[in-house]
Amino acid sequence: MSALFPDRVKLVEVGPRDGLQNEPGRVETATKIEFIQRLAETGLPVIEATSFVSPRWVPQLADAEAVYAGVQRQPGVRYPVLVPNQAGLERALAAGVADIAVFTGVTETFCQKNIHCSVAESLDRYQPVIAKAREKRLGVRAYLSCVLGCPYEGPVAARQVARLARWFADLGVDEISLGDTIGIGTPLQAQQLLAAVAEEIPLARLAVHFHDTYGQALANIFACLELGVSVIDSAVAGLGGCPYAKGATGNVATEDVVYMLEGMGIETGVDLKKLIEVGNYICQTLTRENQSRVGRARISRLKQIT
Amino acid sequence: MSALFPDRVKLVEVGPRDGLQNEPGRVETATKIEFIQRLAETGLPVIEATSFVSPRWVPQLADAEAVYAGVQRQPGVRYPVLVPNQAGLERALAAGVADIAVFTGVTETFCQKNIHCSVAESLDRYQPVIAKAREKRLGVRAYLSCVLGCPYEGPVAARQVARLARWFADLGVDEISLGDTIGIGTPLQAQQLLAAVAEEIPLARLAVHFHDTYGQALANIFACLELGVSVIDSAVAGLGGCPYAKGATGNVATEDVVYMLEGMGIETGVDLKKLIEVGNYICQTLTRENQSRVGRARISRLKQIT
Repeated sequence: MSALFPDRVKLVEVGPRDGLQNEPGRVETATKIEFIQRLAETGLPVIEATSFVSPRWVPQLADAEAVYAGVQRQPGVRYPVLVPNQAGLERALAAGVADIAVFTGVTETFCQKNIHCSVAESLDRYQPVIAKAREKRLGVRAYLSCVLGCPYEGPVAARQVARLARWFADLGVDEISLGDTIGIGTPLQAQQLLAAVAEEIPLARLAVHFHDTYGQALANIFACLELGVSVIDSAVAGLGGCPYAKGATGNVATEDVVYMLEGMGIETGVDLKKLIEVGNYICQTLTRENQSRVGRARISRLKQIT
Repeated sequence: MSALFPDRVKLVEVGPRDGLQNEPGRVETATKIEFIQRLAETGLPVIEATSFVSPRWVPQLADAEAVYAGVQRQPGVRYPVLVPNQAGLERALAAGVADIAVFTGVTETFCQKNIHCSVAESLDRYQPVIAKAREKRLGVRAYLSCVLGCPYEGPVAARQVARLARWFADLGVDEISLGDTIGIGTPLQAQQLLAAVAEEIPLARLAVHFHDTYGQALANIFACLELGVSVIDSAVAGLGGCPYAKGATGNVATEDVVYMLEGMGIETGVDLKKLIEVGNYICQTLTRENQSRVGRARISRLKQIT
C-alpha cells in the first residue's frame, strides 16, 4: 500500500451550525453559546459557529449576531460563519467575524431547492462576496454540496465538482469542502472524486464532509485519508441531517472520527474524553439521541482499553 | 494504491445466532425459523442458524434442534451451527447439520469468562471435535474472539492471534474468522492484524468479523478488503452485542456492508432491497431499533438514487 496518510488532521466542527440548523425545536441562544464554548475547550481548532442566513429561510439561526457576540473566543480557535450573500457578509462583518464560508450545490435542481437560484447565479452572487471578504482579509471557505450524488438528479460527474472547485479556488478561496450531503457515496467513489478534484486544486486546500445516512462516512473518510486529505468536517454526537433528504442521519460524529484517527496515530489535538462529554451534554440538553457510537459506548470502558 | 480488492465477497450472516443469542427477551422458535428463511431468500450464501451450546449457558438458544429442523433449507445456502464441545457436536450431528463452527478467545481472561476454561484447554477440547467433524465431512469454521483487544487484558499481540489461527488451520479447519468482539479496532490495526495472520494462513481462508461499538466496523472492513479479504461476517439490522462488553452495539449491519460493496462494484449475490425488508421485519418483531443506517434510511430514497 502506498497510502499518503497525513500526520495531523484539522477537524472542522460543524455541529453548532450544520447540526443545530436542522433541529426541529427551538434551541436557546445561551445553549448555543455554551455548546460552542465547551467545544472550544476540547481542543477543536475550527468551530463553525452560526450562519448569517436570512431568518426567513432558517429561523433556527435568527440569533446569529447574539450567538457570535456571546462566545468568549479562545486564542488559536477559529469560529467561521456561513454567509449566503452580500447581506449576510455585511452582517458578519458588523459582527466582527474573521472567517466566512459560502455554499452552493453542484446540481441545478439541488441548488434551486436549497438556495433558490441556478448554480451559475449562485456563483455570480458569491463573486463580490468573496472579493469583499478577501479585501477585508477574512478567511474564506466554500462548501460544495451533493458531490457524490443529488437527491433529485442522481449521479454527479466528478468533472462538474472539479470545475466548481476550481472556480472558487481561482477567486482565492482558502479551502473547499466537498460535501456528500445525502451520505450516498462509498469509499472508492469518494477516492475517485477527491483524486479528480485534486488534479485541479492542491489537496491541502480540500476538506471532506460526509453524512452518515447509509453508514459509509467513516469508511469514506479512511479512504480519503489514504489519498492524504488532512481537513475533515464532522459534528459532535452526529448532529444534523438534511431537510431535503428525509430519513437522513446527520454528519459523521466527531467522536468517531477522533477515535479512528487516534487509533491510526494521526494527531488532532482534541481531547476525546472531553469531546464525548460535550456530545452527551448537547444531546441531553436537546433531548436528542446521541448518534456517535463512541459517545454511546461507556466512557469508563473507553478509558479501560485505550 | 495497490489495493487487492476481491471481485466477489462471501457474506456470512450471523444474525440468527450471534444476534439473537444476545436478545434480552425470549424469541419464539417460529420467529427464528421465519427469520432464517427470509434471510435465505435474499441471496445470502451462509446463514449461521443457531448454536448447540448448553441451555444452561445460553437459554436463548435452547431450541437449537427445533430451529434447525424447522428451516426449509434452500439449495446453495449453507446453515452452519455453533458447537462448543463434543456434546454439542453430537447434537449437531443428530440434527443433520453440514457445517459447524467452534470458537475461542485469544486471551486467557476472556476465555475464562466466556467459555470457562483456559485457551489451551479450549484447544484440547476442540481437537477431537474438529477431528470428528472432519471425519463426518462437515465444514468447519473457527472463530477467534477479541483479536484487536480484550476487555480484560487490553491490547492483544497479533502473533498470538496468528499462532492460534495456525493451530486451527493445521487441524484442517476450512475458515478462520477474526473477531473484533468489542469493536475496539481501527483500520490500520485491522490491516496489520490481517496481514500478520495471512503470513501464516492463506488469506482465502480468513474471514473478518467486526462489531460496531465505536463506529469503526465499516472502515475496518474497507481496510481489510484492500488486502484482499473476501469473507465478511455481519448481522442484518446490526443485531447482536456482547454480554461481556456493556454499552457495546452489535455486529456490523449486513445492509450497510452490502451497500458499500455494491458501491465498490464488488458482487455479493444479495438483493439489498429484500435484505432491508428482512431487517425491518426482525426489528419490528423483536420491537428493537434497527441499527443499520441503510435500513433506517428510506427504501424509496435508496431506490431513487442508486
